[in-house]
Amino acid sequence: MLFMEDLCNLYDIELDALYRLVEKGVKRVLLHAPDGFKPLYKCVAGVFEGRGIELFFSSSPGYGACDVPVEEAEALGVDVLIHLGHLEYFHHGFKPGVSIVYVPVYARPMISEGVLGELTSYLRSQGVIGVSISSTIVEEKIRRIIAEHLSSNGFRIHEVHNPLLGCLYTHVASLDNKVDAHLVIAGGIFHPLGLALVSRKPVVVLDPYRGRVWSASEEAQKTLRKRLLKIYEARISGVRVGLIIGSRLGQYRSWLIEKLEREALEKGYRVYKVSSTYLNIERLIAIDNALNLDIYVVTSCPRLPIDDLDDFYKPVLTPGEFLMLLTGLEKYVYPW
Amino acid sequence: MLFMEDLCNLYDIELDALYRLVEKGVKRVLLHAPDGFKPLYKCVAGVFEGRGIELFFSSSPGYGACDVPVEEAEALGVDVLIHLGHLEYFHHGFKPGVSIVYVPVYARPMISEGVLGELTSYLRSQGVIGVSISSTIVEEKIRRIIAEHLSSNGFRIHEVHNPLLGCLYTHVASLDNKVDAHLVIAGGIFHPLGLALVSRKPVVVLDPYRGRVWSASEEAQKTLRKRLLKIYEARISGVRVGLIIGSRLGQYRSWLIEKLEREALEKGYRVYKVSSTYLNIERLIAIDNALNLDIYVVTSCPRLPIDDLDDFYKPVLTPGEFLMLLTGLEKYVYPW
Repeated sequence: MLFMEDLCNLYDIELDALYRLVEKGVKRVLLHAPDGFKPLYKCVAGVFEGRGIELFFSSSPGYGACDVPVEEAEALGVDVLIHLGHLEYFHHGFKPGVSIVYVPVYARPMISEGVLGELTSYLRSQGVIGVSISSTIVEEKIRRIIAEHLSSNGFRIHEVHNPLLGCLYTHVASLDNKVDAHLVIAGGIFHPLGLALVSRKPVVVLDPYRGRVWSASEEAQKTLRKRLLKIYEARISGVRVGLIIGSRLGQYRSWLIEKLEREALEKGYRVYKVSSTYLNIERLIAIDNALNLDIYVVTSCPRLPIDDLDDFYKPVLTPGEFLMLLTGLEKYVYPW
Repeated sequence: MLFMEDLCNLYDIELDALYRLVEKGVKRVLLHAPDGFKPLYKCVAGVFEGRGIELFFSSSPGYGACDVPVEEAEALGVDVLIHLGHLEYFHHGFKPGVSIVYVPVYARPMISEGVLGELTSYLRSQGVIGVSISSTIVEEKIRRIIAEHLSSNGFRIHEVHNPLLGCLYTHVASLDNKVDAHLVIAGGIFHPLGLALVSRKPVVVLDPYRGRVWSASEEAQKTLRKRLLKIYEARISGVRVGLIIGSRLGQYRSWLIEKLEREALEKGYRVYKVSSTYLNIERLIAIDNALNLDIYVVTSCPRLPIDDLDDFYKPVLTPGEFLMLLTGLEKYVYPW
């Protein structure tokens, strides 16, 4: 059984900024983390406890750096919102009304020699010499060790220091011409899939949590075929389009909404603008019951149509996919 | 099949305020309604269309007058948020930063002679002479017709003009000493149950949508037994309590949170304050994974523990129930 102290020991959490908050005399603090990191609340609460500081724990999800519960911080009137697990989100229009401190969380390296050996063998078997290596902020320390290992084993490494986000892979895909493959250090399929959707090169994954090496390209091909089918379905579904707009501070992208609306109107589409806070199948059903449109385009987060809403009974597209439909582009456009 | 025009004809929607908005020159408008009324978006959109007004449709739920998507209105920068289906919500601390226009929606009377006859027979069979009659704002016009019918049939009527809310029944229960029973005009069990939980008198329901008369008292007794069991379970579960605080503008009740925290600390409880936006089983699991507390108390909306979270694997109490636990009160306390 995993006890709390063990859990805290699995991660390096940068607490310096939090101790500085205590010194500065903060009185009310809201802690927030993605669900997977919420158990780490207990690892940082000790910084504030017993010092007359009122501490609140957010139960709300954190689907990305774009999704922090600013409205909760405002309602509670806290001095600072502390978010665990993502770096500060830079985005045109993202100007939170509360002070937010972003606390990086790093998984401690726990990579076996066996997996490293498996990785080098696999890359060699695929004829890979030049390889990019990328990860989210969480796997940054593991990534460094693996980069050094590959480098000392004769691979030509392009380590990508800017972390991956669910909607940001262009900084890795732009290395396509310089590498034979991309290596992603990640648990699960979410980030490897995002990269594989936009890169022409094979995406190899080292999953440090399960201790295995695998290729994401096949799964990405399946997803890509599904997405192209959605675009085709959307093309023959009709011209009444619901443009879904996110109100989460990092998900409201007015320039994109205006661009899509303008281009859609030019092509004869009728545009209905739908606002959303947390979009899921239930919310989409509620709005489709009301408006009964032909297709929906999600401008808040491009992962929603791909990962969460692909079973909806009408086509739900990303902004990039909708632009492909409007302009006839054949190369898959992601993210946007 | 029910067509859109038919749907609009089932309700009287007070559009005057909306035409006045058009005259005043509003440029950006957000429409919002509870899911059940979202199909009425189409019945009011015509007021704004073709006049150069930018119209947005909210996909977010509206669980009550306390739950309007102010954050969406703010993100979109609309001139006005129009909410269909509830009257303005008066609540200490409810000061939205955007202009909100509340548009009442009234179900058009469509009550058959047969059901009216069934009602009078049923009330007489129960020996009822004095009876209160109440409803939400939606059934107000139906309620008036039924009140007149009962009055002209010799019943002593106390018509309650202030509408029912999911958290507000005291204005009806306060008539307990003046009536033999309470009559609620409502579809479904939600409002009859709320009243029956706090009244000592039988609660009779006329459901105008299904055309039937029934007694809510038996179902309320079942719910009441369940709630008392939850309080008992909570009493023996431990002293680490999660006080869940709602950030929705009408659900943040600081006075109640302070009162509960103070009384809990006095009784030796350890209080953890949890913030929430939309609370459901998934969010409760996420926070329980993090904090692993003994019991939870929901201060945002007293219906959540009763209607939505009663299957959670730990006791989840309303504020009133938690006070019963703390003070040893035996009479069921609702709402709070």
